[in-house]
Amino acid sequence: MKIKRIDHIAIVVDDIDNALGFWRDALGLNLSHVEDVPDQRSVVAFLPTGASEVELVKPTSRDTGVARFLEKRGPGIHHICFEVEDIEDALASLKADGIRLINETPQIGTGGKKIAFIHPESTHGVLVELYELTGQEPEVRLARARRLADRVLAGGQAMANSALEFLRGLGGNSR
Amino acid sequence: MKIKRIDHIAIVVDDIDNALGFWRDALGLNLSHVEDVPDQRSVVAFLPTGASEVELVKPTSRDTGVARFLEKRGPGIHHICFEVEDIEDALASLKADGIRLINETPQIGTGGKKIAFIHPESTHGVLVELYELTGQEPEVRLARARRLADRVLAGGQAMANSALEFLRGLGGNSR
Repeated sequence: MKIKRIDHIAIVVDDIDNALGFWRDALGLNLSHVEDVPDQRSVVAFLPTGASEVELVKPTSRDTGVARFLEKRGPGIHHICFEVEDIEDALASLKADGIRLINETPQIGTGGKKIAFIHPESTHGVLVELYELTGQEPEVRLARARRLADRVLAGGQAMANSALEFLRGLGGNSR
Repeated sequence: MKIKRIDHIAIVVDDIDNALGFWRDALGLNLSHVEDVPDQRSVVAFLPTGASEVELVKPTSRDTGVARFLEKRGPGIHHICFEVEDIEDALASLKADGIRLINETPQIGTGGKKIAFIHPESTHGVLVELYELTGQEPEVRLARARRLADRVLAGGQAMANSALEFLRGLGGNSR
């Protein structure tokens, strides 16, 4: 199986605006967008950096894994997501190696991308997500990049640099 | 302040060989090297992916932060490290924003690189490391890349692809 890169690090928070006070305003990451994801019962803020993203995730319901994590442990890193070349192949390979999978077949995420989680029991305590870029997603990401570019035109050089990095990240995905 | 990319994700483990059974053998990340870091009282396995690395950290003493983390929480993600353009500038900016720093001035890490940690209290539960590439480090990294390239010559195409990604990551650092 072939891992391409770290796609994102997901951080569970109890207040998106409050968390952006550190991750965007103090640390200086660029916010590409905030998205309500009803089927995951969460709100997600996306902050691209290099070819990866930091994602701040706030649960909007009490009965999700993310909400239970927040209640039990407080805010912090929830999972790490890697882009893979072929997710079905990756899951078959992991299964053959006796790795415990949370999703034995890929789930369909935002923009049509395929995702699956590996159980922390098999990874030494880390919830690992695998993700494969699929057909519809480049269009979704391009639309986001265009919205970001529009904002950059109004926002000056510092934001332009972040956007360039974000676009480089998109380029990296299509390799 | 200017964040360039995710440099690495550090995962605390209690047994490096055992952890490599998942992270290298099952997940398929390439192992660049394993290093004994006496001044951090730990052994670290470096697994480059894209322009970032996964680092598996095993404490070699009981009285370090990493050892206490392992004893209290078990294996898992310990911190996330971002490369910054100018670490002194970054720390001054964070301090001016009222962010709690673990290191108010940069510490000198392996290969002469400058590093500093931000307290999880100010980041919403995440231990954040900042890192600035400095003079000596490109030589250290180049020597590692050469050793990796030597192994690639003996190891075939799959490993060559990982090495290329690793070298691309080095290229990204020098921009």
